[in-house]
Amino acid sequence: MAENQFQDQAVNTATKGLGDCPPACTRQQLGQLGWNILQEDVSLPVAVLRQSRIEHNLQWMQQFIRRYGVELAPHGKTTMSPALFQRQLDHGAWGITLATAPQVHAAYTQGIRRFLLANQLVGKANMAIISRLQQDPTFSFCCVVDSAANVDALGRYFAAAGQTLRILLEYGVEGGRTGLRSPRQEAEVLAAIQRWPQALHLVGVEIYEGVLQQEAEIRAFLQSVVARTRELAARALFREEQIILSGAGSAWYDVVADEFSSPDLGQPLQVLLRPGCYLTHDVGIYRHAEQRIQANNPVAREMGRSLLPALQLWAYVQSVPESGRAIIALGKRDAAFDAGLPQVSLHYRPGSGQPPLAAPADWTVSAMMDQHAFLQLPPDADLQVGDMLAFEISHPCLTFDKWRQLLLVDDDLTVTGIVETLF
Amino acid sequence: MAENQFQDQAVNTATKGLGDCPPACTRQQLGQLGWNILQEDVSLPVAVLRQSRIEHNLQWMQQFIRRYGVELAPHGKTTMSPALFQRQLDHGAWGITLATAPQVHAAYTQGIRRFLLANQLVGKANMAIISRLQQDPTFSFCCVVDSAANVDALGRYFAAAGQTLRILLEYGVEGGRTGLRSPRQEAEVLAAIQRWPQALHLVGVEIYEGVLQQEAEIRAFLQSVVARTRELAARALFREEQIILSGAGSAWYDVVADEFSSPDLGQPLQVLLRPGCYLTHDVGIYRHAEQRIQANNPVAREMGRSLLPALQLWAYVQSVPESGRAIIALGKRDAAFDAGLPQVSLHYRPGSGQPPLAAPADWTVSAMMDQHAFLQLPPDADLQVGDMLAFEISHPCLTFDKWRQLLLVDDDLTVTGIVETLF
Repeated sequence: MAENQFQDQAVNTATKGLGDCPPACTRQQLGQLGWNILQEDVSLPVAVLRQSRIEHNLQWMQQFIRRYGVELAPHGKTTMSPALFQRQLDHGAWGITLATAPQVHAAYTQGIRRFLLANQLVGKANMAIISRLQQDPTFSFCCVVDSAANVDALGRYFAAAGQTLRILLEYGVEGGRTGLRSPRQEAEVLAAIQRWPQALHLVGVEIYEGVLQQEAEIRAFLQSVVARTRELAARALFREEQIILSGAGSAWYDVVADEFSSPDLGQPLQVLLRPGCYLTHDVGIYRHAEQRIQANNPVAREMGRSLLPALQLWAYVQSVPESGRAIIALGKRDAAFDAGLPQVSLHYRPGSGQPPLAAPADWTVSAMMDQHAFLQLPPDADLQVGDMLAFEISHPCLTFDKWRQLLLVDDDLTVTGIVETLF
Repeated sequence: MAENQFQDQAVNTATKGLGDCPPACTRQQLGQLGWNILQEDVSLPVAVLRQSRIEHNLQWMQQFIRRYGVELAPHGKTTMSPALFQRQLDHGAWGITLATAPQVHAAYTQGIRRFLLANQLVGKANMAIISRLQQDPTFSFCCVVDSAANVDALGRYFAAAGQTLRILLEYGVEGGRTGLRSPRQEAEVLAAIQRWPQALHLVGVEIYEGVLQQEAEIRAFLQSVVARTRELAARALFREEQIILSGAGSAWYDVVADEFSSPDLGQPLQVLLRPGCYLTHDVGIYRHAEQRIQANNPVAREMGRSLLPALQLWAYVQSVPESGRAIIALGKRDAAFDAGLPQVSLHYRPGSGQPPLAAPADWTVSAMMDQHAFLQLPPDADLQVGDMLAFEISHPCLTFDKWRQLLLVDDDLTVTGIVETLF
């Protein structure tokens, strides 16, 4: 779907994040209402995407990926927003990575066509979703396998459907998540794949390094995976001329780029990196990861100004019931809380005539309930009911899934558009 | 909206929790497909509501509330499902409690008309949502106030709109959440209310006791609130003949019923209790709360068989990569994880001809990622890729908000219907 087709869709006025909106308003019309967050045109809490920062992050990653001569298949589970997927594709992404068959279906309904499923495809109804999409010749798909039982189930299903499923062999690490651990498992899975020569085509190798914590062990794992890929290529087990080699979450993509960009396997190699959180970044776990990348990776260092946090939540002070404590109308229903609580960044008093000010460092969120956050303050803090606060977040994935729509805003916090999510 | 109007709405086939579904399928048609979870007709993971248990819980709470002669305004933020709200109303609920103006609007679009907003109404756009709804004479609404600043903002807004807003005075406890702490605050808020005699009508008192941990302190707080309400009544500050007195989350509703059901204030009293989680219950925080209620509350004890967990998640074993560990295709994207991780209750092997069996007690979820759960097993556990597991949850609120639709199932796990959520 082209950008203008997204723009013609009606906005969802039934749920939060918008406000009192003209009936049958399209996304394009919404971006032309001139609404501004600071003018209280929008019902808070609201999730906003800062457009200039999104643009910066898109360009930064495009340049980084190009410098390594690899390709980007950003993990779409982070945002589950096809309009954002389209921007990623417009900035050079090869296709979109997803985690489940329904996620692939959701993106397909909005016009996305090239997918990597970075998971095993398990279960009859999930196979049915993919098989139905495979009837469209423009749909391109591959998924990963790590067990003979799954390979045989896929072989049976796709053989009966008269289709071919493209698969990647997944390697893992002891104590980690999914993926082959041993030569015995690898041999069993390869043998199973050979039982279904029509239905299953091995086209590459996939890993997820993010379960490891140390760079040295990650590099060792990546090197072992390159060696295994080389051997599979030497045994002529890949069914397409170009071999896919895919890895990288949002924390170690630089190291994966470094290890995966150079090997000569005697066949064309397509390296697909899958970071998803670069688009919005954050001020928590991914800022932390980025600091390491900026310090250690020569390409990132040379490129300068790195990823910027682009996803912000605005909420009202709902109550200041006692000295040193404010209750904010923002809760676990609105923001991730599993990797650090939201951080207050700006304070604005509607009608004051003053622009938003940086919030003092000693205003901190101490706890969250479903619909409320507890803000700890010094006793003399100048904060009152009806004041607006901006919050930066840690972990975009679990913030996006709290919103069916997010507003695009310019640097003045004027609403310029809206993107839908399909969780 | 009547039940049959919900049934005529099309199901959302764009997102998870359903599967490969006929195009333009209505909710009613979906319930007639004969789909069964165990026959793999549905894409897992899926959230199911066990219909007979929902029915049991509805009846149980209706009877409990009747026995105390109070009324039920269940907190709808738990499910945000207007079809479930309608069932609660059909089982005698007075109206629906909600947490935010957009939630009220969402429920209104689906036909719900009587609301208690158990929060301050803050911000121009949120006031605009309520003001627009108040143009419908069948819309009934009240919200709470705990600050003079908020009262004046409401007074200004609703005076300008030529409307009257019905408000409840909220009392709180030191170290708690929102609500008045001191006689000085109370006097300030009452004075502010009197500045807006047309726009603001004080119609009652509201509290949330769930921030306290001990029964004795909860009873003391409730008694103090009854005393304050009596004094406000004596001062003729309430603007309607019948005074609203509202409290109770899902953990202490029995104690609130006990304390609030008897006072004579010299005016008719309408007690509104607001538990929301009774509808689905859980096997975590609310089972724990229910054990206390069953042990201590004479009415609950006499009624016997208490609330039953009715919300269940089904997911596939996606990988068994090493001995003692299985990776399940169920993550933080699908289940609450803030009050205990999901618990495996049933194990089923598709095609085995065996019914689901109770899962051994030593199969435990040890961690969750966005899209995966880690299941710890004894080394000899008989579990394989493609097996199905049922999970019980703790904290329904943060499970419901992960799903745009949940399937209603009968005792054989045949799908009988579907309910939408509007988060």
